[in-house]
Amino acid sequence: MSDCIFCRIANGEIPSATLYEDEEFRVILDLGPASKGHALIIPKQHYADIYELPEEAAGRAFILASKMVKKMTKALSCDGFNVVQNNKPVAGQTVFHFHMHLIPRYEGDQVGLGWKMGKLTEEDKAEILEKMQITD
Amino acid sequence: MSDCIFCRIANGEIPSATLYEDEEFRVILDLGPASKGHALIIPKQHYADIYELPEEAAGRAFILASKMVKKMTKALSCDGFNVVQNNKPVAGQTVFHFHMHLIPRYEGDQVGLGWKMGKLTEEDKAEILEKMQITD
Repeated sequence: MSDCIFCRIANGEIPSATLYEDEEFRVILDLGPASKGHALIIPKQHYADIYELPEEAAGRAFILASKMVKKMTKALSCDGFNVVQNNKPVAGQTVFHFHMHLIPRYEGDQVGLGWKMGKLTEEDKAEILEKMQITD
Repeated sequence: MSDCIFCRIANGEIPSATLYEDEEFRVILDLGPASKGHALIIPKQHYADIYELPEEAAGRAFILASKMVKKMTKALSCDGFNVVQNNKPVAGQTVFHFHMHLIPRYEGDQVGLGWKMGKLTEEDKAEILEKMQITD
């Protein structure tokens, strides 16, 4: 038996409020929701994060996200959606099994989820473009 | 000429700090970055949001996200990554042309981007599961 809680949930060893399931993924309601209907897409295979996730699985995960967002928007009559995928503790990842947050948004909700906009300086721009070329 | 600023950027009518480009997407540095290296994946075709984006394009967008995250993590030596995709004003979308935020994270940064965790009540769970079945 795996020590990973999301492995056990995704594979049905631990019961969960499941909105969708197929051979590759399970979509469950988050136990600590940011809003009503907050769900998680979890692959049944263990990958710690986006760095480990195979590309084909990444593609299928976001296709599923787009399907779930449409279906949930209808079912919940929400007004919008955030899709959020966090990698590593510094980014807010707390369970180290790749997952995607589907967060329904409602007019007047207090979810937040924004960020303070900085400014792209000429120095940063030049530095980043150079570094991105170096690692081509 | 399109009135949509992201159409014009993606198609090169307006210059941008481009990290990557192919036939379908352009990846640029955000002018109001949450952190150093904050980038946007923008499809060249116009889709307002995830509701309009064809599934195949959704799949390719997240495959590209996973490639960019790996490459940028190496180039920028960051410690993690958020991938965020907002739909509709209530969710923080400000340009109504589908895009995906790639936000590098660094130890000690002040990006925030979290949310307050609520609690999944039995009532909400039952209601959501029922509604999701109704619209099957």
